[in-house]
Amino acid sequence: MALYVQKYGGTSVGSIERIEAVADKVKSFHDAGHQIVVAVSAMSGETNRLIGLAKGISENPTPREMDVLVSTGEQVTIALLAMALQKRGVDARSFTGWQVGIKTDSSYMKARIEDIDTSAMRKQLDGGGVVIVAGFQGIDDDNNITTLGRGGSDTTGVALAAALGADECQIYTDVDGVYTTDPRVVPAARRMDKVTFEEMLEMASLGSKVLQIRSVEFAGKYKVPLRVLSSFKEGNGTLITMEEMSSVENPVISGIAFNRDEAKLTLKGVPDVPGVASRILVPISDANIEVDMIVQNVSEDGTTDFTFTVNRSDYQKALKILNSLATELNAREATGTDDICKVSMVGVGMRSHAGVASKMFKVLADENINILAITTSEIKISVVIAEKYLELAVRALHTAFGLDAEEQAE
Amino acid sequence: MALYVQKYGGTSVGSIERIEAVADKVKSFHDAGHQIVVAVSAMSGETNRLIGLAKGISENPTPREMDVLVSTGEQVTIALLAMALQKRGVDARSFTGWQVGIKTDSSYMKARIEDIDTSAMRKQLDGGGVVIVAGFQGIDDDNNITTLGRGGSDTTGVALAAALGADECQIYTDVDGVYTTDPRVVPAARRMDKVTFEEMLEMASLGSKVLQIRSVEFAGKYKVPLRVLSSFKEGNGTLITMEEMSSVENPVISGIAFNRDEAKLTLKGVPDVPGVASRILVPISDANIEVDMIVQNVSEDGTTDFTFTVNRSDYQKALKILNSLATELNAREATGTDDICKVSMVGVGMRSHAGVASKMFKVLADENINILAITTSEIKISVVIAEKYLELAVRALHTAFGLDAEEQAE
Repeated sequence: MALYVQKYGGTSVGSIERIEAVADKVKSFHDAGHQIVVAVSAMSGETNRLIGLAKGISENPTPREMDVLVSTGEQVTIALLAMALQKRGVDARSFTGWQVGIKTDSSYMKARIEDIDTSAMRKQLDGGGVVIVAGFQGIDDDNNITTLGRGGSDTTGVALAAALGADECQIYTDVDGVYTTDPRVVPAARRMDKVTFEEMLEMASLGSKVLQIRSVEFAGKYKVPLRVLSSFKEGNGTLITMEEMSSVENPVISGIAFNRDEAKLTLKGVPDVPGVASRILVPISDANIEVDMIVQNVSEDGTTDFTFTVNRSDYQKALKILNSLATELNAREATGTDDICKVSMVGVGMRSHAGVASKMFKVLADENINILAITTSEIKISVVIAEKYLELAVRALHTAFGLDAEEQAE
Repeated sequence: MALYVQKYGGTSVGSIERIEAVADKVKSFHDAGHQIVVAVSAMSGETNRLIGLAKGISENPTPREMDVLVSTGEQVTIALLAMALQKRGVDARSFTGWQVGIKTDSSYMKARIEDIDTSAMRKQLDGGGVVIVAGFQGIDDDNNITTLGRGGSDTTGVALAAALGADECQIYTDVDGVYTTDPRVVPAARRMDKVTFEEMLEMASLGSKVLQIRSVEFAGKYKVPLRVLSSFKEGNGTLITMEEMSSVENPVISGIAFNRDEAKLTLKGVPDVPGVASRILVPISDANIEVDMIVQNVSEDGTTDFTFTVNRSDYQKALKILNSLATELNAREATGTDDICKVSMVGVGMRSHAGVASKMFKVLADENINILAITTSEIKISVVIAEKYLELAVRALHTAFGLDAEEQAE
């Protein structure tokens, strides 16, 4: 008998029929003798409907009242799922964030969980019942309703699993696991049976949207085994694990992530004096623009080229700032482009294999793909290339690094 | 400076535009220096939408989960109204039932308020802010969410007013007060400036749907002055008061209520022995049929005719029971009709005026309206007549008892 925390997202509970299907799935685990705690999101579309109501009243509604408003979405789902389980003869009981004692800080709309009181859940579990918890929400020390920010139901699931010492936190979603890359780009992409937390974190930060990055961090910190599965298909999904994998299991490269949502800016011929990087990046960050990659080449003739990437939606704003900086810093020129993308190879096995980078660059060169910038970490190599080469690059790398499925998945 | 509790119903907050209008009204009272506590219902249609979701899952959803579900409706409204007031520069703060500490018993879907903790509201009021409370909801001793039953937001308003010792509980609705009778039937019907609690209770129990009957009882019990006003029109509405009115203010008849939703059943020639009334009514009540009027004539030749009225929707069920009782009790015949209605004259002044009943019967006789049954109380006389005479009877009585407006209301 195991204790599982299962999290079902908005599309998994997006209609009465889907809530019934989730109830079937929960019941089958319960019938098998497991203790089940379910965390659910709002029915898909509901959160946006509620935000639409708020925007009808105010462009800038207060965060406290936004949280009072949007937290109703998950409360609807817990009641409906409890009813569906009760109809199946399962003793199920719903709990809102405050009822289950999910204590957070007071940062409305992006609160962090500080503590969970497990006594009410334990009582229900010990009585043989299923616990259903509203994801995404909690309360602060003054009994104000808070929410964890969008996608926060994953975090709720992981936090519940950590607090209860669950055997596994199962994240049910509309994909059946974590793939070596996006199957829509590479039909030969393979579902991974296992992936390490570090790899998953890199994949998530690179825009692979299977899991909310904070929930992966949280699971890693509290050593909660995390599994991504499909709500709609059978299968074991992908286990995200702290375990050291054997060298057989441990490929050099686990997956290839990519992100189209990037723009690249360069300040050319900027005098290479101490402090110049911060003089460039502080005004950017003051304008609330997040910087992703930063590349600075070695200095020649006392000047350097300083390159960084930002979210594509911030491109025009960043370029304007860079133009005025060019004058101010006596640089040669500010340039940029937003028809680029980032392709990243991720794998813990990379640590012990020096040749990964050179092999990656050769594969791209063989396809006549010019590399515009490079950054590396312990378990990741990212390159910026022209966006038009994205599919070609990802497919070539996927094949070259032996990630293609033996038989193409149907 | 006064402390007002204002309650706004579902149609008053049925759209973003109407919530904005309520915010204007609340702000005008706040600007005038009053302390304001607002209790709100769910936006009109929302509760039915939520019940529809539940019915999609189960014909008999558990009451506990129904309350978790439907209580979200009011939570949406409090957040939106708080935002609308904040946009107007008013310091407003929303409170759910559990946040404001509305303690109830554990009767889901029809809970009764046991206690209200006013400390959180006092803090907000003392700081010059407006308090916005979700109507209709509370929590029991085990932190389960409860609801007061449909229309319970009126009760929330009155209970808040009682707990806070408010100067007045103002119920904003889609009518501008309590009328001498339904203006759709009698165009000359007059809005009353004042009405006593006893009269209001009789009117409410007779199907005059301005206020939920439990809220009137509650207000009477805790001596909370209650005022019914329109959310959409200016005006002073109708004050429901404990005050003794002067004889000038105190007409013999205050209003005429009526109810079409009735059916009449008679067991004829039933042997008139002790206990026969209960032998008839116990099976009716066991079938969950509520009995309204009960009339038993004096006995002739050892048998009597036993007549009672029920809600029209229970007519067929009641008649079936009565038919089998007829055999069992050796009665002559069970009969009934559902094309009847009840017309009631209400007024505290009736106590000291013996001639009201006889005048009423004469007015009806002059119109050739046959009276099928009569019951009386201290401040009410009700007659059952054929439904086709309803409008004629109400108009004739309204005129005969001097209730018509001097000039017809526009």
